Amino acid sequence: MRPVDVLRIGADGRRQVSDVTAAEEPLDIRLHGESFAVVMRTPGADQALAAGFLFSERVIRGAGDIGAVEHCRHPDHPDLHNIVDVFLRGDAIERGRVLLARRRRVAANSSCGICGRTSIDDLAEDLQPVSGRTRVPAAFIASLPARLRDTQATFDETGGLHGAALFSFDGALVCAAEDVGRHNAVDKIVGRLLLDEQLIGDAILMVSGRVSFEIVQKAWLAGIPLLAAVSAPTSLAVDLAQAAGITLLGFVRDAGFNVYTHQGRIGDG
Amino acid sequence: MRPVDVLRIGADGRRQVSDVTAAEEPLDIRLHGESFAVVMRTPGADQALAAGFLFSERVIRGAGDIGAVEHCRHPDHPDLHNIVDVFLRGDAIERGRVLLARRRRVAANSSCGICGRTSIDDLAEDLQPVSGRTRVPAAFIASLPARLRDTQATFDETGGLHGAALFSFDGALVCAAEDVGRHNAVDKIVGRLLLDEQLIGDAILMVSGRVSFEIVQKAWLAGIPLLAAVSAPTSLAVDLAQAAGITLLGFVRDAGFNVYTHQGRIGDG
Repeated sequence: MRPVDVLRIGADGRRQVSDVTAAEEPLDIRLHGESFAVVMRTPGADQALAAGFLFSERVIRGAGDIGAVEHCRHPDHPDLHNIVDVFLRGDAIERGRVLLARRRRVAANSSCGICGRTSIDDLAEDLQPVSGRTRVPAAFIASLPARLRDTQATFDETGGLHGAALFSFDGALVCAAEDVGRHNAVDKIVGRLLLDEQLIGDAILMVSGRVSFEIVQKAWLAGIPLLAAVSAPTSLAVDLAQAAGITLLGFVRDAGFNVYTHQGRIGDG
Repeated sequence: MRPVDVLRIGADGRRQVSDVTAAEEPLDIRLHGESFAVVMRTPGADQALAAGFLFSERVIRGAGDIGAVEHCRHPDHPDLHNIVDVFLRGDAIERGRVLLARRRRVAANSSCGICGRTSIDDLAEDLQPVSGRTRVPAAFIASLPARLRDTQATFDETGGLHGAALFSFDGALVCAAEDVGRHNAVDKIVGRLLLDEQLIGDAILMVSGRVSFEIVQKAWLAGIPLLAAVSAPTSLAVDLAQAAGITLLGFVRDAGFNVYTHQGRIGDG
């Protein structure tokens, strides 16, 4: 958060007030010293973000693929807090090399192929549909927006951050994150759990905003069977959740919600 | 929009309903046949999106730099509606070549450098601060959220789209767009006006969501002196608006709003 001076204009007149904004700075995620991606993010949980991002990009497949994740320590660089150096281990070194070369070559948005259909097919070729069969009571899901909001310390002050939280089926909060970027908040959660070598699956991921293709993709890679959002999913998100075996819930608010796919996991009560 | 079958769970029970989701598909923006970027977008206004995107990326500087913008017509490609071919003219051809090579090389998020501060300095070196001095009554600004909402036909049905609209200072709606991506909605407006060879500056841009660094950057490049948002700006957005000479307004809702920078353009009444 960063303080700013603001002129507040309302029905009751004008006044000069102090406010806070959500901090937004670029993070350079480097593989063995070479820039893999620059993402705009809210500073904090940078190692988790780097790990989660590389997991989503399929460079790493688990904590064992990471040798080290740390902020850059080069004494000559002025923005050390905005650079994370990642060192890989084993097979991941070669995967990182290949993906870095591909990113150099195609200069394209990394999170999708040319065609959503192709991407879904590609993912379905490599990944099994999420198989968790636990049923979750509807009332539990309806309680999640308030619980997500409780984790969002900064949002309450700035109104500018997206939140995400992972809950276990017995109701415990596993991990929460917030960020100026919707994708980053999810990457921070997945990355945190990876770094802690915790299992991620069999849990419900609740996000504060909308659900796009990429959010479902991240949930699938992490093996999360239920994905719930305060707002709407896109058409491609619904398609991907269908293929992924993920129960996709939208408009979770005001004690109700919509179930777009795989309704079997929603129990009564 | 795309129809979906939804299980609706509410306080009043469960029912199966038909709903619509916001369509989301990738658009491949090509320069002279080579992929420059792939953006996830809501289909529609694709030529405008391509033109606005290339303007934001500083490949083109005006309508005169565009030879043609059209959907791909190659008979063998299955996704012609998701590819836009752009052909440049004059100096822009060389700029496009250089930027394409750089994108291949750095494999990074194109919308920022390593450090926001550097980016602001870079922009300030090339661009003059926006100089429009027109004062806009506070009551006019307070009326914009409702007018933006009126332009958002799809949002009303799906809840899943970001909207943006450009209004002239005499209150006329100049152009509106909506998209699954916040940035795309702004690119569609700027691109539409470019393609129509209309002047863009001396107007107010209203966006439905938050304001990040990139949105301010797009407004600056287009010479727009007032930028208003329903939700919060980020810290870097405030910094950039300050440098750009742009009046940045946030939380424009419920008859009030916050003025973050360059308050002189907000008149009484």
